[in-house]
Formats: sequence, C-alpha cells, structure tokens
Amino acid sequence: MSPKITTELLKHLRQVMKNPRYVQEPVQAYIVPSGDAHQSEYIAPCDCRRAFISGFDGSAGTAIVTEQHAAMWTDGRYFLQAAHQMDSNWTLMKMGLKDTPTQEDWLVSVLPEGSKVGVDPFIIPADQWKRMSKVLRSAGHDLVPVKENLIDTIWTDCPQRPCKPLITLDLSYTGVSWRDKIVALRSKMAERKVMWFVVTALDEVAWLFNLRGSDVEYNPVFFAYAVIGMNTIRLFIDGDRMMDPAVREHLQLDSTLEPEFKIQVMPYGSILSELQAVGAGLSPKEKVWLSDKASYALTEAIPKAYRYLTPYTPICIAKAVKNTAETEGMRRAHIKDAVALCELFNWLEKEVPKGTVTEIVAADKAEEFRSQQKDFVELSFATISSTGPNGAIIHYKPVPETNRTLSVNEIYLLDSGAQYKDGTTDVTRTMHFGTPSAYEKECFTYVLKGHIAVSAAIFPNGTKGHLLDSFARSALWDCGLDYLHGTGHGVGSFLNVHEGPCGISYKTFADEPLEAGMVVSDEPGYYEDGSFGIRIENVVLVIPAETKYNFKNRGSLTFEPLTLVPIQTKMIDVNLLTEKERNWVNEYHQKCREVVGAELERQGRHEALRWLLRETEPLAPVQ
Amino acid sequence: MSPKITTELLKHLRQVMKNPRYVQEPVQAYIVPSGDAHQSEYIAPCDCRRAFISGFDGSAGTAIVTEQHAAMWTDGRYFLQAAHQMDSNWTLMKMGLKDTPTQEDWLVSVLPEGSKVGVDPFIIPADQWKRMSKVLRSAGHDLVPVKENLIDTIWTDCPQRPCKPLITLDLSYTGVSWRDKIVALRSKMAERKVMWFVVTALDEVAWLFNLRGSDVEYNPVFFAYAVIGMNTIRLFIDGDRMMDPAVREHLQLDSTLEPEFKIQVMPYGSILSELQAVGAGLSPKEKVWLSDKASYALTEAIPKAYRYLTPYTPICIAKAVKNTAETEGMRRAHIKDAVALCELFNWLEKEVPKGTVTEIVAADKAEEFRSQQKDFVELSFATISSTGPNGAIIHYKPVPETNRTLSVNEIYLLDSGAQYKDGTTDVTRTMHFGTPSAYEKECFTYVLKGHIAVSAAIFPNGTKGHLLDSFARSALWDCGLDYLHGTGHGVGSFLNVHEGPCGISYKTFADEPLEAGMVVSDEPGYYEDGSFGIRIENVVLVIPAETKYNFKNRGSLTFEPLTLVPIQTKMIDVNLLTEKERNWVNEYHQKCREVVGAELERQGRHEALRWLLRETEPLAPVQ
Repeated sequence: MSPKITTELLKHLRQVMKNPRYVQEPVQAYIVPSGDAHQSEYIAPCDCRRAFISGFDGSAGTAIVTEQHAAMWTDGRYFLQAAHQMDSNWTLMKMGLKDTPTQEDWLVSVLPEGSKVGVDPFIIPADQWKRMSKVLRSAGHDLVPVKENLIDTIWTDCPQRPCKPLITLDLSYTGVSWRDKIVALRSKMAERKVMWFVVTALDEVAWLFNLRGSDVEYNPVFFAYAVIGMNTIRLFIDGDRMMDPAVREHLQLDSTLEPEFKIQVMPYGSILSELQAVGAGLSPKEKVWLSDKASYALTEAIPKAYRYLTPYTPICIAKAVKNTAETEGMRRAHIKDAVALCELFNWLEKEVPKGTVTEIVAADKAEEFRSQQKDFVELSFATISSTGPNGAIIHYKPVPETNRTLSVNEIYLLDSGAQYKDGTTDVTRTMHFGTPSAYEKECFTYVLKGHIAVSAAIFPNGTKGHLLDSFARSALWDCGLDYLHGTGHGVGSFLNVHEGPCGISYKTFADEPLEAGMVVSDEPGYYEDGSFGIRIENVVLVIPAETKYNFKNRGSLTFEPLTLVPIQTKMIDVNLLTEKERNWVNEYHQKCREVVGAELERQGRHEALRWLLRETEPLAPVQ
Repeated sequence: MSPKITTELLKHLRQVMKNPRYVQEPVQAYIVPSGDAHQSEYIAPCDCRRAFISGFDGSAGTAIVTEQHAAMWTDGRYFLQAAHQMDSNWTLMKMGLKDTPTQEDWLVSVLPEGSKVGVDPFIIPADQWKRMSKVLRSAGHDLVPVKENLIDTIWTDCPQRPCKPLITLDLSYTGVSWRDKIVALRSKMAERKVMWFVVTALDEVAWLFNLRGSDVEYNPVFFAYAVIGMNTIRLFIDGDRMMDPAVREHLQLDSTLEPEFKIQVMPYGSILSELQAVGAGLSPKEKVWLSDKASYALTEAIPKAYRYLTPYTPICIAKAVKNTAETEGMRRAHIKDAVALCELFNWLEKEVPKGTVTEIVAADKAEEFRSQQKDFVELSFATISSTGPNGAIIHYKPVPETNRTLSVNEIYLLDSGAQYKDGTTDVTRTMHFGTPSAYEKECFTYVLKGHIAVSAAIFPNGTKGHLLDSFARSALWDCGLDYLHGTGHGVGSFLNVHEGPCGISYKTFADEPLEAGMVVSDEPGYYEDGSFGIRIENVVLVIPAETKYNFKNRGSLTFEPLTLVPIQTKMIDVNLLTEKERNWVNEYHQKCREVVGAELERQGRHEALRWLLRETEPLAPVQ
C-alpha cells in the first residue's frame, strides 16, 4: 500500500482557498470532514472528499489544510492505515492520545491572528459548528461557511452523485402506509406546536415514504430531503426516478388527492432556498423542527427563534419501533440468513482443512449463499472475515495485503449481514475448525455468558439500553478481562444496519428507553492483540416479559433472538456455565433446529440440515 | 400539623420587593431557593428561608412569590407534607407530574411584560442562574440579583448564623497535613495553568485545613470560604474561633512560616469584595478555578474570560480518595458503630414484644448506644426508624404524629449513622422480631442478592459507579420488582455522609470513575406502599481486586464492606441464593464475628456478643 502523492492537490487547494471566485475572503484554513450533507455513517464515492485530498480512506477522519500544514485527525482503529495511506505532506493527529491537540486548539496554535477558517456548511453538523466556532472566536479567528465545496472545485474526476432507481415497499413489508406515517408525524408536530418538520437523514426519508434506494453501498437509501408542513409535503430528489410509473403510483403523484397528501417533488439542490423561503415566511410562534445534527446550512436557514431542535426526531423514534409486518419480515430475513450461514459453515468445515480458503474467499462464499435467498438485495456492511490475529482487529476487513488463509489451528470470526426486502441482518459467529485450546474456550465461554446475560435480561419498561451494558461484561470482568466497544446498536428494517435512538453501550447516556418492537444487536467480545478475536452477536427483538410481580404496574421487557445460527458448542467450556445458562443455550439451539431446520428442509438443503442438527445437539450436563 | 399562616408575611415581602431601600428597581417576582451560599445539602436554621416564608420545611423546594401569586415547587417525597404545612396563599407545584410547569414557564405565564425577577445571587448556583436567565430573557423578562436577601429583611427573629468552636484533626486522623494538601492543590492548579482556586463548599474547606465544626446539624462543617493562590492562602471565617490557641497552633498562625503557607484570616462576609479585587487584578491568561455549582455572586466576581469552571473540584476528587489513616479510621468507626447496633438489636429483640418501643424510642436508643463509643461526635443524619407501612416511605423520619410502635408482626427498617472523630457511618438493616412471611423473605432475599452483586462485583479500573447500578436491581427485575432510588453515594471521612464525585446510580452519568480508596454506600431496597420497606445498606471501600488475567494491564477493583453488622438470616430464603451468594453471607458474618466480636469482648458487652454469635451462624446449605 503506497501513500497517495498529494503535493499538487494541496497546492491546488491552497490556491482555491484564496480564489475570490470561490471564497468571499481568503481562508487561512479549510476543514474537510468525513461526512455527507445528511450526516450519514456510510457515504457515496462522490462524498469521499477527505479520502480524495489525503489518500486516507478509513471510515472516520477529519482533514484540515492551512497554508503551511495539512493535518488528519483519526482514532486508534486507523492510526496504522492512515500512516500508510498518507504522504509526508500530512501530519497524523492521533485522537485519544494525551498529547494530541483538538482540531480547534491546533488551529489556534498554527494560525496567524484574525484568520478565517472555512468549511462546507452542508457537511458540518450545526452542533459541531457551534462548538468549533466558539473556540475559534474566543481566540480571535472566524469560522466561515464556504458555499462551494473547495474539494469539489479541484476534484476533476469526481464521480457523479448516484441517482439509482427506487424500490417501492408495499404494506406487506412496511405495515403502515406513507400517508399514515405522515398523519402520525403531523400529530407529533401538533403535540409540540411545530408547523414544519425537515427530514435530513437519508434513512428517515426512505422510511417515511416506504421507498428504498441504492445510492449508498450497504444502506438502501437515496439522496433526498423532505419538508413536511401541516398541509404540505415537499420531497427534494433528483433524476428521472420520479418518472418510474411504480414510484408515481406508490406516491400517488398522478391521483386526485386531498391537498395535504399531495407530494410536491422538487430538485434535490433546491432544499436550501426552499427552506430559506419557509424561514422567511414564518409567523411568530411557528416553529420548525430539525435534528440537532442537521447541517449548519439547513439549520441557519431557519431564524434561531423559530428553530425546534431535538437529538432524536419523531421519525427516528417511530422507525425504531418495528410493527408486526416489520418484525415478521425481520424474522423471515433472519431465517433465510441462517440458512445461508448453515450452508457456509458446513462448506467451511469441509474446505478449511484443505488450506485453500482465505478470508476473502470465505466472505465471498457467504455472500454467494446469501444471494441465493429470496428478496436478497445486498450486504448490509462490509463483511468482517478474520482468522487468527486478524480477529483481534475489531473493524477488520480483509484486503489482498492482509488476506489470511483459514486453518484448523486458528479461531475464525465472521461478522456479516445482508439486506433483504423484508429485513436487515447482522450476525457474528466465532468458530474453530480444529481443536480450540482450553484458554480459547474459557474466553469464548465468558463472552457467551455476557451474551446470554443481556439476551435473557428482564428489565422494567422505560429502561435505557446503556443500563444493560455491564451485564455483558460481568463474566469477563470477574477474570480481569473486557472488550473496548459497545455491546449493541439499533438495527433498521431493510434499512441501515446501525440506527438510533437505542443501543447498549457504556458510552451513551442520551439513548432513548428500550420499547417493545425495538431491534438491537447483542455482541460482546474478547480480543487478544496478535492472537485471536471472539465475538458472539445476535440481533434481538425487544418483547414484553412475563414476571411473577409487576411493580407500580410498569410492565417488564426482555429480548427474543431474531438471529438463529448455532453457537459453536465445541468452543464452550460447559463447566463455566450455570444451569440457567446451559438451558438457555439448549433452548436457543432447539429453536434453531425447529425454525431453521424446517426452512433448510423446505429448500432441500439436506447437507446443511445435517450440519445444523449436529451443531445443535444439547450441551452435556454441567459437572 | 396545622399550616403556617403567611398572609402578613407575604404582604410584607411584597412591600420590600418594591422598596428602593432593598431593590434598585421593583421586582415583580422573588425566588426563594432551598440552599445556602455554599450549595450545602444540609443547611443551618438561619438559612431555612423558604421554610420561614411558606411553612414548608422539607429538604427540597423552591418558593416563588409574585404580586399576585405564591407558588412552591417540590418533588413527590413532599407533596403531602407541603400541602399540610402551607396555607391557602400558596399553590403547590408538583414536580415530576406531566402538567406541572417549570418555574421559568410558570413565571413567563403569570408575569406582566418586561418584568424583573429577583433572587439572592449568593444562593443561586451559577449554572441555574444561566438556565433561568436565558428562558426569562427570551420572554422579555430579566433575572436580577438582589444583593440584600429580602427574606432576611422581614425575618425579624431570624436565628444567628452559627459560629461554633472548631475541632482540629491531627495527622493520625487525616494522614496528610493541611500544608501538604495545599501543595497538592497548587500542583493541580499548575497542571491546569490556573492561578487561583476558590473553595466554596463547606466540606471542602473543612477537609483542606483538617478542621471540623458544628455549624450545621449532622455535617461537621463550619461557615467559611477559602481562596488559594500560588503564593497566598486566604481563609474567610467569622467569630473568635481563630482566637482558640489549638486552632492557631494547628494553622500555625503565629509561627514564622514560608510566606506561601501563611494563612490570612479574613471576615466571612468579605469574600465577595476580596474576590472582586482578585478578579480586577488578573493579567491575561491568569485563570480562576471555581466549581460550576458555586454561587452566581462569586462566579460573577471573576470576569468570564478568566473563569475556569469544572463540575468537580480537585479538592472534591482528592477528598473522595481516602488515605491509609482515613481508611483505618473509617474501619475503627464502623467497628464501634457495629458494637452500638449489636447492643441495640439485642435490646430491641427483648423489648419489642412488650409493645413499648416506638420508632422514636428505638432511634433514641440507637443514639444512646452510639454515644457510648469513643470519639462519638453526633449523628450523621436524621435516623430513619420505621416499622410496617412507614418503612415504605423512603425518606421517613419519625415524628410524634406518625410514631408507630414496633411489633413482632411487622418489618422494622433502621437507616442510621454517626460521626466519630475517626470516621462517618451509615448503615441500614431490616429486621423482623417475629416470623416474617414467605413473601417478605422472598423480597428481602432479592434485595440481598442485589446488595451482594454490587459488593462482590469485580470491575476494571476507570469504571464509573453508574455502570454497577443494574447489578443491584437484576434479581428484583427478574421478578418484575424494582426500587426508585439510586444504589449508593459517596461517604466522607468524619465529613458529610453524602459526598461526590462518585456514587452508584442510574441517574448520573457525570460521576467520576471509582478508584481504590473511595468509599460509597451499597443500599438496594424494595418498598411496598402501605405495607413495608426493605433496605440493606453497607458502607464499602473500593479496593484493588486480584484477578486471573489483567486485560491491557488496567487492573481491577472490588469492594470491601466497612460496615460489619449482621444481616438478619431469619429474613433470608436460602433457596433463592446461589452457592456463591451463600458463601458471601457466611464469610461476611464470619468477619463480623471476628472483628466486632473481639471489640464486644474488649468492651465487656457479653450479652450483645452472644446476640452477635447467634445472628452470625452460617446459613443452612442451599437445597
């Protein structure tokens, strides 16, 4: 992996930073964040501006270029990769290390007095603008919005913004029509006395209109904004996608509709001017609801007194609570996904001893088996297929340079998932194709105990997910072990594999309480640098729990595993399990047998069925 | 309990609200918060201004008086009491109920346009001022500081501010001299590039100078401020307490000292003008460190650009980590406290069946036994002595109107503690002097399981206490039960029984990580309205834990119980315990026997010793 040569590019960028064609006044620094205009986690190639200017293409990083310097902030996952991918023009700022300055402090230390720091106001979230602007101002500098993205001006072969066809989802998938979603949204708006709601997150637009796209890899979304008034609906979207008769029919664009459900389709690029017009026409007490993570540009379009900002939008919260059609869809998707993984693991078991299966081959094979399933659309994230020491790299993705061959001597960790039209999956299994050591089994069993502690937890209605995080760690902690990531994230329904507002992590406090119908992952792990990685991940559904008593009539919740893939019993040290934990494993495996077994049978996959039956034999009794 | 008649008082207050002798401009509303100028939890009688003006004397509440209205905000603990104690001039604002407006919203709804809202700037914390002021300003009103406290102007028989003699603590109690504490503080100041530190919390002043007082009931503190510079020490304190030769000697007031350790003693009331002088004399980049909970008056004395505000001060954090002398003192204090409680429970066992022991009698008897112990100073909080349904009132304190007689048919809950010169105690035991029902035992055992889950928890260095809270609830949650309070609070060393910056609660996220040497309580409970209350509370010391492995070399922590009072085995349903839990109880009781037994023996308390031996018999094996 040789670094990208950026000398000319930086020279070019520094020229446009002073070019009155692009900037009102010269800017002495220009910030290039990771994100897109929708604060997406996964971005399209045309939005990979930071990778273009620096060469560093990890998922997180912020570049700042001044007349003298070029610096890149990224976190511990990417120190090595960034160092490899960037040339000597760049200084790597290792976030999380004690001596690494913040972006603001660094700017203050290198800039001449009274400098202007430019940033694309569409890319920077309003809350981040506020924080940064305050520090810079107090040091005598100014953060200024630069309307035209300066990277785009020098990126001559920048790919086009994708504009792929849309998929319409009918009621059998969504359970609720887009009209009813608009009605529900307007009632939330009325509750908060808000006249307008601006939908900026791509998955929120997709969910609201029961549409899906493929503009961004892994996330079935499309570039669009929406502005919902009490009597109007405006959808900002480009291309001829709105010419598709199925989409026109779905959105009833050609029907005689009550005016309040008539969708006005407008160009994607007109959101700012339209929103400014909305802002200019507001009467006193008419508020506009935006996510507090919306871009600075859109937030500023609404005068401050009229803004109503919340960390989670009503769509984000409604989207998280899956209805019956969605949970049924998620169940179906997970059964199909389990079929594919039974096939894969059965195949690996036979092929690995031959020494020809690499991490990439295994990942491709997983995709192949998944793509044979009904309604398969694409993967839901880049497959983490890692063996031996690569397993300890938590966000590993095999590439030719690192690609390792699976063997009977190493632990294999596969974290993978797919998008099906009826649901999104995300599952991690850790396997050994030979004989695991006692130590490997011990660690695996602690992780399993943590997984079960969360999955079987019973907790009152209103409990936030972060209060369950320690349950996942307790068995590891008892032995002085731990893992340095959260325990779970929200999962969309044929939508983003990571979604808010719920999750299970020691790091958050602002998560929304868990509710029946929410879907999260349960994925504790243990990683030993240079040796192996262990993670056991199921996607689980929050369901009501039956309890002996019912304090203050609050009701209780628990989880139902949606993922139904055997957990390798060979890796379990049964003597470390309690009776309750052993029963949990046996009941889980019994369910895998019944549900996935029936589907394997139906699909005529007899060899995989035999594998499933063998892998789900009850555990030996605890001694 | 008849309400206080406040018609004349309110008339009088409304007059001074317009009287130019006290206010620059008339104020249309006046806020009377609960606190004192040090944001103390427990306050002196002269600071009970809200109780004086309204009659309501609960520990939490804010009164606001306008020309037309008088309103009182308090929380669910005090709805009944406030309604009883206040006359019809007052409107009770029930905090936590959906329809109750916030103080700001209520003010906006009742005030005429462009009103002034007054408050004593010494009583309102700066962060609260900021929040309130913002809302009022955006509605066209002004929050204004009223220098003279308006309640004091009409409170003709207001008690004097207490000014009791001081206690000096030598190295055998404190482990570190006040000079060394100043040196350590200055080194923290240098680290943060801060030139001045303002000590506003009473327990922080007491800790820093190794002095104690008795100006406030239960908290061995005295009214004072301190301002520490890199070369100066100013102590703001009133009265002839500084004439006491022991105090002069302790503070070396008459010695020839290096100038940087020379304490300048100044009048308590001169803090503001002195701080203003400091503020006026600052050079650029000279910062002044204050708690962000310090009063608005003192915070404003320092120009904004020069303030360095943190939620926890370095003294708060240093004070929380007890040194060897302090932990040894805490251990001694808890042994003495256990002796007193063994005597009490032995006595109760004999007396309760006679039907003559009321909650107040039991509380008095507990105090009597404690006061027989060496270095006893006073109680550390108002004893919660509650039987039957009174036990379900979490912050109950027996008064003649509610005083209930203990019997062999009801559960008795005693939450009590004391200040000894060597340490502070806080212990809750729940007892039955007859035969508990199966249901009572079941609930008690769940609470015990939660207590043990926290006490025996092993967790990595750097873990915050709130991450342990769910361990205390898990057994209750499994059966649909819970309790509506936190699990633990920090405990001072012969200081406040509640102190920051650590604790164990689902409610906080801003707590500081637990460290070896910190002392917290572990007190899960279960309360059934109208029937009974159960709580099991030990004070525990954070200690290093030995673990099999040591991930990333972080080291692990666990707890050592300082409280050594038997947990009533009669209340335990042994079949609900795991083997590990049963062993914990037996080992705990074994330690009570050995440590407290030896002290009972030494003090010749043979009957209580026999009681202890009987109560600490090992549990029957789990069936």
